[in-house]
Amino acid sequence: MTLALDAAAQDLLFREARTANTFSDEPVSDEQVQAIYDLVKYGPTAFNQQPLRIVLVRSEEGRARLVQHMAEGNQAKTASAPLVAILAADNEFHEELPTQLPHFPQAKDVFFSERSVREASATLNGALQAAYFIIGVRAAGLAAGPMTGFNAEGINKEFFGDGEHSVLAVVNIGKPGEDAWFPRSPRLAYDEVVTTV
Amino acid sequence: MTLALDAAAQDLLFREARTANTFSDEPVSDEQVQAIYDLVKYGPTAFNQQPLRIVLVRSEEGRARLVQHMAEGNQAKTASAPLVAILAADNEFHEELPTQLPHFPQAKDVFFSERSVREASATLNGALQAAYFIIGVRAAGLAAGPMTGFNAEGINKEFFGDGEHSVLAVVNIGKPGEDAWFPRSPRLAYDEVVTTV
Repeated sequence: MTLALDAAAQDLLFREARTANTFSDEPVSDEQVQAIYDLVKYGPTAFNQQPLRIVLVRSEEGRARLVQHMAEGNQAKTASAPLVAILAADNEFHEELPTQLPHFPQAKDVFFSERSVREASATLNGALQAAYFIIGVRAAGLAAGPMTGFNAEGINKEFFGDGEHSVLAVVNIGKPGEDAWFPRSPRLAYDEVVTTV
Repeated sequence: MTLALDAAAQDLLFREARTANTFSDEPVSDEQVQAIYDLVKYGPTAFNQQPLRIVLVRSEEGRARLVQHMAEGNQAKTASAPLVAILAADNEFHEELPTQLPHFPQAKDVFFSERSVREASATLNGALQAAYFIIGVRAAGLAAGPMTGFNAEGINKEFFGDGEHSVLAVVNIGKPGEDAWFPRSPRLAYDEVVTTV
């Protein structure tokens, strides 16, 4: 049984793609990020909600503001990657539903009037969108280095400050550098993950 | 600026792929699910954790047990899709870290001794893996119909019962049927999602 997706695309997105820990000096342009977004924005979410927000850290000052909130083991690579993207969920995404879900504009009030429900939904669907973004970085021929080792509260205050956003991941982006990754770690076997009822 | 991923793959995975609400009668085989898993298992997660668990609902009895927990608007399609997969996070994923993260086996105890930390990590990384799985379904030339409208506590008890698993999504899988989808809903513009500092 083979997949419909061609082998080169399988390799580019999954089989040969790796999480990079070092990067070359080659810059990542806004045009590349735009091309990534214009692809992955079509990834499916519940109620077509789009909680994902992306902060591209380009200035020296922005980089310093971010690095101080990263775990020690992530600081050097966050400081040196060609581009760093903060991926966060906007917990007030429901305000956009009347325009983003035109066939059911009432969803905003019917399902998302409670903050705790909104937050859980923004986390889940924001994470789906974060995964699509990582796939998109690879689709652009770049390596992604997603990280969750950071002071989340610190990043939320530093870069959003409105109490309405929750950082999901920080992603280093660029062409891989020297010794960019560890050997591939194992994966669970099919039978350890999949059961049938 | 173009992507490295070829146009056919872009269409298959994102641009022309749609969330299906109806399906043809064509069955989905275990071999297809195995091929999907063998591709998407390589998607990156924090600490190489692999909390995603997949329950394939194949028996009539299993289908009935699931449908009763689905929101009314999701019941008919869940009852009729060629294959339904329950995607859940195993909140005790950390037990596998010593074998799945051989270069840092201590991660299990250093980072995940607290249940609340494990649960948050399982939710985030399980959602990343759920997104990879949805992409994998599309890579197999199939349509996915992911749903979050269900009684989560009911599904957790019905299909896991150990108190250690949290359902993330239920996904209908198959070839699209007649009138399989609504017109595509809008997406946020780049400037509404991406900012630069």
